[in-house]
Amino acid sequence: MAKLPSGTISVIFVAQRTELDADGYARAAAMMDNLAAQQEGYISMDSVRGTGGLGITVSYWANEANAKAWRDHPEHTAIRDAGRERWYSEYSLHVAQVTRSYDWKKP
Amino acid sequence: MAKLPSGTISVIFVAQRTELDADGYARAAAMMDNLAAQQEGYISMDSVRGTGGLGITVSYWANEANAKAWRDHPEHTAIRDAGRERWYSEYSLHVAQVTRSYDWKKP
Repeated sequence: MAKLPSGTISVIFVAQRTELDADGYARAAAMMDNLAAQQEGYISMDSVRGTGGLGITVSYWANEANAKAWRDHPEHTAIRDAGRERWYSEYSLHVAQVTRSYDWKKP
Repeated sequence: MAKLPSGTISVIFVAQRTELDADGYARAAAMMDNLAAQQEGYISMDSVRGTGGLGITVSYWANEANAKAWRDHPEHTAIRDAGRERWYSEYSLHVAQVTRSYDWKKP
């Protein structure tokens, strides 16, 4: 939950989970979180899922090329196919370049 | 959960709730969602809070001037002060301009 440099690429993934295959999904999500964190240009990730199965994950990348390389990573691509088949009923994904950023913590 | 036009301004708010004043917070959040939706240039909002009190809200605006006008709206400013005093222990806010956007729904 930190301030980001201007120019950071944010990838906003908003997705509705089905009720299928909770274990398989949890395993794949943990694996993807780990793998993403090892990629060049990875900065950080914020992720929340609500009780109704709606989730928002925002990953932050140093530049557009780094974000695209993660999109095209073979393991990520394979998992995305599984996501469409079993785990998600609907999603949107927005790629957006940070222009301003703030953070605050209770003193 | 829809595709957005390029140039859309996304305001990514990641915040950790305290355990204080759940009712006051819920009332204020509903009021702010309503008021935001009435502002010029408002497109939509995605919002999730997890069981641990971490929440992500992303609001989408037609342009930077519209997003700034909402930031500076007097009622929104007053609520933000209450948020720092009672409702949040920590947050970050990133303003980012959409460059690419996709959506998918199970056929």
